[in-house]
Order: sequence, then C-alpha cells, then structure tokens
Amino acid sequence: MNDPRAGLEALISPKSVAIIGASDDPGRIGGRPLRYLIKWGYEGPFYPVNPNRDTVQGVPAYKSIKDIGKPIDCALVAVPAKLVLETLEDCAACGVKSAIVFSSGFAEVGDAGTSAQDELTAFSKRTGVRLLGPNCLGILNFHTRFFATFSSTGDQGYPEPGPLAIISQSGAYGTHLFAVAKGRGLGVSHVLTTGNECDVTVAECIDWAADQDDIKVIAAYAEGIKNGPALIKSLEKARANKKPVIFLKVGQSEQGAAAAASHTASLAGADEIYDAVFRQYGVYRAETTEDMLDAAYACTAGIFPKAGRIGLVTISGGVGVQMADHAVKLGLDVAPMPEDAQKLLKEKLPFASALNPVDTTAQFFNDLSLVGINFDIMLDKGGYDSAVAFFTLAACSPYVVEPLLKELDAIRKKFPDRVLILSMVGDQDMVDTYSNAGYLIFEDPCRAIGAIAALTHIGQGFQRPPAPAADNLSAPVDVPARDLSEWESRNLLADAGLPVVDAVLCTSADEAAEAAAKFAGPVALKINGRAFAHKTEIGGVMLGIETPQDAAAAYNEITARAGRAMPDATDEGVIVAPMVSGGVEAILGVQIDPVFGPAVMFGLGGVFVEVFKDVSFRLAPFDKPEALRMIAETKGAKLLAGVRGKPAADVDALADALVNLSKFAAANADTLASVDLNPFVVLPKGEGAVALDALVVPKAAD
Amino acid sequence: MNDPRAGLEALISPKSVAIIGASDDPGRIGGRPLRYLIKWGYEGPFYPVNPNRDTVQGVPAYKSIKDIGKPIDCALVAVPAKLVLETLEDCAACGVKSAIVFSSGFAEVGDAGTSAQDELTAFSKRTGVRLLGPNCLGILNFHTRFFATFSSTGDQGYPEPGPLAIISQSGAYGTHLFAVAKGRGLGVSHVLTTGNECDVTVAECIDWAADQDDIKVIAAYAEGIKNGPALIKSLEKARANKKPVIFLKVGQSEQGAAAAASHTASLAGADEIYDAVFRQYGVYRAETTEDMLDAAYACTAGIFPKAGRIGLVTISGGVGVQMADHAVKLGLDVAPMPEDAQKLLKEKLPFASALNPVDTTAQFFNDLSLVGINFDIMLDKGGYDSAVAFFTLAACSPYVVEPLLKELDAIRKKFPDRVLILSMVGDQDMVDTYSNAGYLIFEDPCRAIGAIAALTHIGQGFQRPPAPAADNLSAPVDVPARDLSEWESRNLLADAGLPVVDAVLCTSADEAAEAAAKFAGPVALKINGRAFAHKTEIGGVMLGIETPQDAAAAYNEITARAGRAMPDATDEGVIVAPMVSGGVEAILGVQIDPVFGPAVMFGLGGVFVEVFKDVSFRLAPFDKPEALRMIAETKGAKLLAGVRGKPAADVDALADALVNLSKFAAANADTLASVDLNPFVVLPKGEGAVALDALVVPKAAD
Repeated sequence: MNDPRAGLEALISPKSVAIIGASDDPGRIGGRPLRYLIKWGYEGPFYPVNPNRDTVQGVPAYKSIKDIGKPIDCALVAVPAKLVLETLEDCAACGVKSAIVFSSGFAEVGDAGTSAQDELTAFSKRTGVRLLGPNCLGILNFHTRFFATFSSTGDQGYPEPGPLAIISQSGAYGTHLFAVAKGRGLGVSHVLTTGNECDVTVAECIDWAADQDDIKVIAAYAEGIKNGPALIKSLEKARANKKPVIFLKVGQSEQGAAAAASHTASLAGADEIYDAVFRQYGVYRAETTEDMLDAAYACTAGIFPKAGRIGLVTISGGVGVQMADHAVKLGLDVAPMPEDAQKLLKEKLPFASALNPVDTTAQFFNDLSLVGINFDIMLDKGGYDSAVAFFTLAACSPYVVEPLLKELDAIRKKFPDRVLILSMVGDQDMVDTYSNAGYLIFEDPCRAIGAIAALTHIGQGFQRPPAPAADNLSAPVDVPARDLSEWESRNLLADAGLPVVDAVLCTSADEAAEAAAKFAGPVALKINGRAFAHKTEIGGVMLGIETPQDAAAAYNEITARAGRAMPDATDEGVIVAPMVSGGVEAILGVQIDPVFGPAVMFGLGGVFVEVFKDVSFRLAPFDKPEALRMIAETKGAKLLAGVRGKPAADVDALADALVNLSKFAAANADTLASVDLNPFVVLPKGEGAVALDALVVPKAAD
Repeated sequence: MNDPRAGLEALISPKSVAIIGASDDPGRIGGRPLRYLIKWGYEGPFYPVNPNRDTVQGVPAYKSIKDIGKPIDCALVAVPAKLVLETLEDCAACGVKSAIVFSSGFAEVGDAGTSAQDELTAFSKRTGVRLLGPNCLGILNFHTRFFATFSSTGDQGYPEPGPLAIISQSGAYGTHLFAVAKGRGLGVSHVLTTGNECDVTVAECIDWAADQDDIKVIAAYAEGIKNGPALIKSLEKARANKKPVIFLKVGQSEQGAAAAASHTASLAGADEIYDAVFRQYGVYRAETTEDMLDAAYACTAGIFPKAGRIGLVTISGGVGVQMADHAVKLGLDVAPMPEDAQKLLKEKLPFASALNPVDTTAQFFNDLSLVGINFDIMLDKGGYDSAVAFFTLAACSPYVVEPLLKELDAIRKKFPDRVLILSMVGDQDMVDTYSNAGYLIFEDPCRAIGAIAALTHIGQGFQRPPAPAADNLSAPVDVPARDLSEWESRNLLADAGLPVVDAVLCTSADEAAEAAAKFAGPVALKINGRAFAHKTEIGGVMLGIETPQDAAAAYNEITARAGRAMPDATDEGVIVAPMVSGGVEAILGVQIDPVFGPAVMFGLGGVFVEVFKDVSFRLAPFDKPEALRMIAETKGAKLLAGVRGKPAADVDALADALVNLSKFAAANADTLASVDLNPFVVLPKGEGAVALDALVVPKAAD
C-alpha cells in the first residue's frame, strides 16, 4: 500500500497519467484535460481510456485502464458518478497510485451522494489510492505542466511557474484566484482544488506545500474544515518552515451554536474560532480576493517584519496623511522619527517635513541622491521595520528610473531585513523596470500599507515559539458526567489555579450568619445546586446583605424561593461570599468547538459581550503572551488601562487566569462541554482578579 | 470688472493664453506648459512672454505682456514669487481675465509667504482677475486641450475627454488621480488643482462643475476647507443637479479642539464635522484612491439606486458568501428573495440555490438563456435596487461573450433603473467587449460591492429634500455674553422645545423640603450658579435624597460646600429635581465649528462617548429623517432598540429633541459657543425623553 505522502506526490506531480472517460470533444469534461496535456506540453506519458475509440484527440486510446499495462501514477476520472467507484477499483487493481475525480453527484447533492462519497473514502482508506475530489476542478502543476483540469483557464495558455501555491476547496474560486494572479503577473506554482474532500484535504495540501522549496507562499481558501487538528498541524508546520499562509475562509458553521448549552457557546459561532486559529498560528486572514493577492504578492519578497513600526515617505503631503491614517487603522505603528534623525534629515532635506510621514515634496526628484540619504536616515536612525514610499508618476519619468534605482539598490543592500514598497503609477514598462529589479510595487498607496500590515502579521507569527504542547498539561481532573453545582464548579476551577471569590457553603441560616460575620462586610447569598444554573431568575441570589441577622433571614428567603420554584431540585445549600467592589467586570469562558476542540473566550462584561459581541477566542492551551494578545484585541480592552478616573486593572492576573483556564480546558477537553466565569472581576493593578460566579458544564454522559 | 463666473470660465476654458516666464527648456516650470500647448494641440492663440528671447520653443515671444496687444483670457505665471504681484498688475492693466500662478513661496513657506499671498487675494478682489494657486499644478482641460501644467503627466500624452472632473488642492494628488484614472481607462474632463487657494477654491470649482453638462461625476480632494458655507452651497447645488460628488478629505484640523470649552467640543475634531457634512449632503467620502476611483467609475453609468437592497448572483457559492458578508459590512441589505420568486427560480434553475446570493453554479453557462430568466426573476419579483453578478473567467470565454451580452442587454433594457455590475477576469479584449457595451466591470467582486454601496449612498442623497433653510428658524433668543447657570441654561433650552426634567429652583432649605415633598419620591439637589459648571467636583450634587427633611439638610450641606469651594461665586440657589429611573442615557450637544458653524452631536452615555467616541454629528439645522439617520449611525444605537430585557426607547422623542436642538443652534449660532445636555435620558417608547442636566456656553463677549 502507498505511503500516503508518496501517494500525494503521485497525485500532484505524476510521472504518468491515465484519462478515464477521455473525450474526443476538447470542450467536454473528459476532453479538456487531455487537450491541455497535449497542448501545454506535459512531459510524462499519458493514456486516454475510452472503450469506444481507437484514438482520442489523435492519441491512441485504451479500452480499459487494465489494457495499459504500464505504471500509472495518477488517473483522471471523468465518468458519471455511478461508475466512479467501479472505475477506481479497476485503477487500484492496476496499481494506480492516485486519482482525480472530476465527477459531480456526490455529497454536494445531498444524502444519496453522501453515501456514495463515503464509499470513495472507504475505498481510499482500504486501498491507499489517494483521491482528489470528487466534484473538483483538479490540479494545475506549473512545474511539470501537469494541467489536469476541465477549467477554461487552460484555453488562454499557462504562464511559467512562480512562487504561489493556491489551495482551494472551490474549483471556481481557485481558478478565479489563478486568473487574477496571472493578470497581475504573479507566478503560480500549483493550483490544487480539493472539492468535496473524500480523501485529500486543504489541510493536507498546506502540509505538503509547507515542505516544498519552490513554494514561497500559500494562499488557501475553504468554506469549512472538517478536521481541525489536521489544519492546525499543517499551519504549525508552515509557520515553523517560515512559509506564509494567507487564508480566505467564508461561511459560518452552525454546528457550534447548535451545541450551545452555555452563555459562552452561544456567543461563539465557529467563524470566531477560525479567526482565533488564524491569529494564533500567524496565518493572515484575507477578507477579499484583492486583499489575498496583495498579501501573497508582498510575501514573494521573502521579508517579514518582526514588528509593526512603519516609515512613510511621500512627495504629496496629503497622501502622507492618507497613508498614516490607513496604517493606524490596520494596527501599524506610525512612530515619529527620533529627534536626532529629524534634525539630521532637516539638515539634508530642508524642504522636507521630517516627522513621519516624511513629506519630501516633489523637490526630492531634483537631486535623487537625497532619496538615498533620506532612506538611510529613516531606516538607520529611525529603525523602522518597513517603509512605503509614495512616488506616483514622478518615479516613472524616463530620466528618473535609472538614478532612482541606483539609490534604492544601495539602501536595499544596506538594510536587507526591511520591507520596502514603492507606490507609483505610469507606463507599464517603467513600472516593470522596478518590478524586474525586485521591488514590490503598488499603484495604490493604501494597498501598499495593507500589504505591510499582512507581512507584519505573518512576521510576528514567525517570531513566536510553537504553541505549548497539549501533552505538557496536568492530568485531567475527574469531571462527572452530570450537571455541577456552582460550588462544585468553583472548586474545580480553584483547583485549576483560577482565582475564585472566597466563599462558604452554608446549609443553615446560622451558618450563613456566621459566614457573614466572618466576612465583616456586605455579602452575597446564592442558592447552590446542580439544578440551579439559572439561579437569578428564581430569586436565588441576594446581594449586599449587611449584617449576620440579615444573612440568616436571606438564607431562609432564598431556600424558600428555591423550594417554591423547583420543588424537586436537590438543595445543596447556599453560598455566602463577600461583595467585591471596584475593578472591571469581564467574562471568561470555554467552549468545545466541534472542529477545533477546546477554545477559551475573553470579553468585558456588560454591553461589551452581550450587545457588541466584543470577544476574542484562542484555542487551548496557550501561553501568557498569547493571553495578552487575546485581551488586547478586544475593543473593550481600553477600559482595563483605566478610564474615567478608574485605576488601571491587573491585566497580568487576568492573563494568568486565561492561561490557567486554557490548561484546564485542554486537559479536560474530552469531558467538558463549557465553562463560564461571569462575572470575572479584574481588580486594580497588583490586587489580582477574582471570579464571582462559575459554571462548569460537563459533556452529557453517553 | 469681471463677473466672477465669467472669470472662472476664462480660467478653465480660455480662448487665448499668455505664458509669462516662458522657458525654452521644455523641462522647466515655464517650459512645460508651453510645450504641452504646442504638442497636444491647444487651439486658441498662445503667446510666450520672455524679456530675453525672440522665440521660445520656436514660438515668437513677447518682451512683456503689454506688448501682446491682443485679448488674453488666461495668463500662466511662472516667475519667482517676488515678481508675481508685479506681473499680475501688468496683466490686469492689459485686461487679462484670469491667471494660473504656478510659483511657490507663498503661504506654504510660513508667515512671510502668507502676507505675500494675502496681497494676491487683495489684488484679485480689487481687479476682478481670477487667480488659481499660487503653488498649484494648474489645469488640464481635456475638451479644449488646454493643458496648463508643469506636471510630468503631459510627457506621456493625454487621452480623450471623459465624464470625470478631478478637483484637488494638491497638485501631486490631483495628477496622481488622473494618472490612475487614465491607467484604468476612465476618461477625465478636467483636472483643476487649486494649490494655496488665494482666490479660486475647491468649493467654487465644485460649484462650477455642478453646472457642466459634460461632467457626470466630481472627484474632489482637500486637506482642509476655509469657507464651510461655500462648500455646502456647492454640494447642495451638485446634489440638486444630480451630480455625484466623491470626496477624499485627509487631515484633522485642530482649530475645533483648541476652542473646546465644553465636553462636546472636546470630542468633535473638525474631521467628524466633515463626515457630517458629507453624509448630510449625500457626498460619498472615499477613504482611499482606489475607493474614490471605483466609485467614480461606477457613477459614470448614471444610475443611482434609491435604496440598498442588493441582489447577488454567483457561479461560486463561496464567493457568494464573500460578497454577502462584504455587502452587510458596508450597510447594504442582502434581503432574501421573496418566496414566490424562489419557487419560480427553482423551477427554472433547479441546480441553483435561490435565496440571495443566488448560486447558479457553473451550469449557468450551459444554457445562457437561464441568465436572462434568472435576472428577470430577481429584478422583477425580487425587486432589488442593484445587482452584482460574479461570472469570473466563465464570462470571458469566446463562446460566451455574444450570447451572454444578448441576455444581459434585454435585462438592462427592461430594468433601466437598476445598477448591474459584472465581476469577471480574462483577456482584456473580452472584458473590453462588455465595457464597450456599457457594462460596469470589476475584477474583484468585493470592490463591485463597494461601488454599489457608494452609488447607493449617493442615490439616497439624491432622494432627500434640500436641507431646511436656516432662515426658516424662529428668531434668535437673547443669549447673554457671559457664563450661564444651569437654571438659565435649562430654561433657554426648555423654551427652545427641548424636554428638560421638571425642577424647582430653591433658595432656602425650606423651599428644598417643599420641592422634595412635591415630587414625592427621591430627588436630586444641585448647586446652581454661573460659576458652577463643574459642580460635581466640589460636592455640589447630591442624589437620591428620599425625604423632605433630608432635602433640607442636603440644601444646607450643598450650599456650605459651594461656599467653601468657591467663596466668591454668586450663589443662585439649588435646583431640586426628581430622580429619573429607567431609560437609556444619551448625550446631546452643540458646538460651533470654526469652518462650518453650528453642529449638533449625539452619542450614548457612559463608555460610548467617553471611551469609544461613538458619536455622530450633523450641521444645524436639520429635519427629523436626518436626526433618525444620525442616531442610527452610532454603534450604540442598538441599545435604543431594547437589549438585555430592557424596553425599546423613545427614539421618536430623541429625534424631535435633536431637531429642536439643531434649530436652537442654528438660530443662535452667532452667540453660542456650545451646548451640552448630559445626561439626556431616553425613556421607554411613548414616555418621551428628558435632559437631566443642561449647560449652554455663550460665546465670550468681545
């Protein structure tokens, strides 16, 4: 049986090919791939199979795959759905290593198709024959000129190979991406369209591409991923190998919401988990095709900034402001030039505004040596990680190109680790001169800024250590497969290192009075019990109880209310805890995503989570820097810095809590359904943080 | 003396031209315009003026403008700054109607230059000679081929005229815009660069362009506007004449913040006022050059949707989702197809997903008559105002172009008021076939969506009645030029129709007790007086006072505190008002923008305004639909709809209050500095709204 990777190689770069269902009509699904193999110079032997013809498109044909009698790496299957499995069995019998199934009529048409597709999956597992599709547009391999597709892209010819791998579930979108890249002159190495993914997935293709030397950047598209851990493994490999991944993911799965048992889960929506995965693994998530290809193009320069300080140069003051506004909007740091650098620049370019953006005005072009001086000062003394220069048509004057390139080349040589993008417009041959010299060129200055933001996101991802291994966690605790009371939840989380409010579980009014006396201040009383997940609604919570006598009365009142509301519920006492004042209210949670597993949520309390859904997620487990990034990316995080006269909050303690929650979630992923810590109060800096309420929901027993 | 508009015509479309400072070197500032007039076929007579030469670039030259002895519509002035005024005086003496001053060295270099520039302004006013610049890149008039510029754009030739007028303060940016438009094949009628604007402004150019039949869309760029009312007048004219204006405004003036005396003003930032102006007058505010030209290009079709319902058609399901996500993000309404339309579509295209997006899959192209059927159902029964169809490379197959155009043409003829954008990629000649047939084409589907959003914004602006005339307001009230007490502020605003909390001004503890008894519930007491703008800080506010006795004590306490804090302040009693519970807290305000005059602010209370600056502005006065739009565009507006179990708020009453506040602000613009109503509580629907505190700050007496 095939080694799976060897089978994948045979699929993507076959040395020999059979076309089953080969058609003499070069416009048909079975005709186009053959035409492209002939026309565009695929070098390996290829064998059309057609029971009714001696030749197909002039190539000698075989009645059956069995008649070929030569080794076949890959079979292209263009037969009706009902004949696919039989055809594949024949292939397996002949030692074919892989197949591309163009045929549609499988999972995309509903239940009947799904079971037919399951048979293909079973076939592949059983025989080791690797399958692409069904319902896919095939493969374009620009290195071997193996253009195994019935896409009309092949009508217009294929360019030379380039650094970009396109990996897409959707054939229409994958070939669209290729067509747009081609129009932009961005070279492509492979287009792999996975269709219904009965065997080979987008994740596996990313994993493969991450190992290829001639692939410099991976653009992936998916509507949904079935195997989360496989995707994560591939993204982690790509990051380790410094292969940038740009991902466009559309569509929101409803699986997550359906399983929602808790507050946290109902907020999730699997799309937010994808967002978390992409952030965590340094993947740049593109929002549009243009965004995707801008980022991919910028990645081809192979320079990834370690940080987000961007230097801006402009010959138009207004465009400088435009670029600065856009950079700030995208999270880049338009830091002003250090004072000594400003002074120096002012000496050399007295007409320039030296802050950042550096507005050189058009006088820049009167003496091009100033360009070199300017960049030298900015990159050396200013220390920017990246720079964008808006030259517009001035750079495209025939008198300017050569001397400007000379200046820029010297700068690039001196600062090889800085990204430099030129924004210009003019005759294509002028622009091409810069492109051919290796410069990144964007006509639109704001798109140049966008590309820098993408590179910075990726570069920062490359800097980070691998995600903490899930097997480094403490042993899972014993989470019973039934509802837990708040007291049980609280203790589980306290054992996991989460800060929970000091509290006493009381089973009589006297004990409640005693506890209130102990806490010597206003207290809260809450009914406790497995059945009381919604205790507020039944009057099971009383806040701000001042005296022990009042606490005793409150105990009686609460237990009476609980008894009236839920006469059959097991009464497990009343929790008495001190009131906590001050601090910033947050919500921490865990949900188990059906695709990616345990994920931790953070958001600020009140309207932030409930009205604005201002939350961030991360897959568990994660480390403290990741927790701090997770906090910082919510809009509400501003409140933690101290606003409206409030002190700054203990973000450190909050981050520690998130890390511990993530370890708890990862260690107990198999037994947990969700966790909520709401409210979780972040106290002023140095005073820590404390969960005032806790709910752990175990997975229902099978 | 010139009629100003006639002078402007002589500037933009001169019948005769003098070039003063004409240079024989075609690369110099005085050489290039002459070269372009010669080379690109300007038809009127033109006369180089150069005291040292008999001919310039082969054209007979004059020693002085005085020697020409023929009528001159426009003089191009390329002499050193110190000679400009003298030169212009000569021009005036010879009856020259207008001049373009290329020379730099005026306001852009600081104080000395500013006074020289003021002399130019005075000259223009005195003589009626209209001036463009100084420090400008001149004019490109594609109709008359009057290319009066020293921009290097002229090196590469000028295309035929088109529908777009570019009006820009910045010469570098104006010519950049032109170069990008040219590269996209978007025809330009004029490029007008106004530079330092000693006379002719961007606003006046917009006003002029709004009157031109051969201009279909106006793209304007400014870093700041000095005369707000002139801009508004021009925008109102453009809207009345159905000329779309697309504006890119960068830079934030600090004038507004400097004058900040009140909470509202400190939040404003003049940039937000520009935003308000653009929204109010139906101007599309572009954020980037690409955004600007996408919108401008889309406007050339001349169809402006009345509403935002968008229909999406795609041959790739994933791109459908991508487009839908983007449309929602941009505020468009991706309404599902009506059920009968879905049913009908399913009958005709059984393979399609009929909701919206309509995913036709690639099968669409097997029978192109389905395209017509599909659009007919969508536009007729679905009633969408606009539609985007993602056809990618499928539309560019040579077999498809002709039959597809036939289908689309029929649809376009049947629904002439609907915008239709096609998204495709392929060989340029195929794409051009669609463009030449009059279709709007975008390669990127999301940019097509962005263009629809811009058209919809403009179309909705075209629907609205003109802004209410400021002279329809009630007479201004007598706002004294000194600090006002809260009581005085409250009464002024109550008289203006603003809902203020019922209250009593008490001057003794007994009166306070009496008032508390009258309100029969908890009351608030607040020190009143001209000096107590910051009453909370000195303990001048006590809330939730329950009994008349407590109110009397509170009166004494508050007056004592006020006396200690500000012994010299005039004590003007204590305001006693009932506590208001429930409702949603908002903040209403007025500030007088130094450029645009009175503007009204709205935001929700608490963190919304103070932390997130989630506010909206409108110039006063405005009508109720405008007030409702103003409310709806804040993020916090969600809270008014009723969240977290709260009832919906009385948005109607809130909008009425904003309208009345806008009338008050407009009527008293000359005497007001600012107004704050904070908090302003919007009660549950049907119960109105009420200001709990009010501060009117008059303009300081001169």
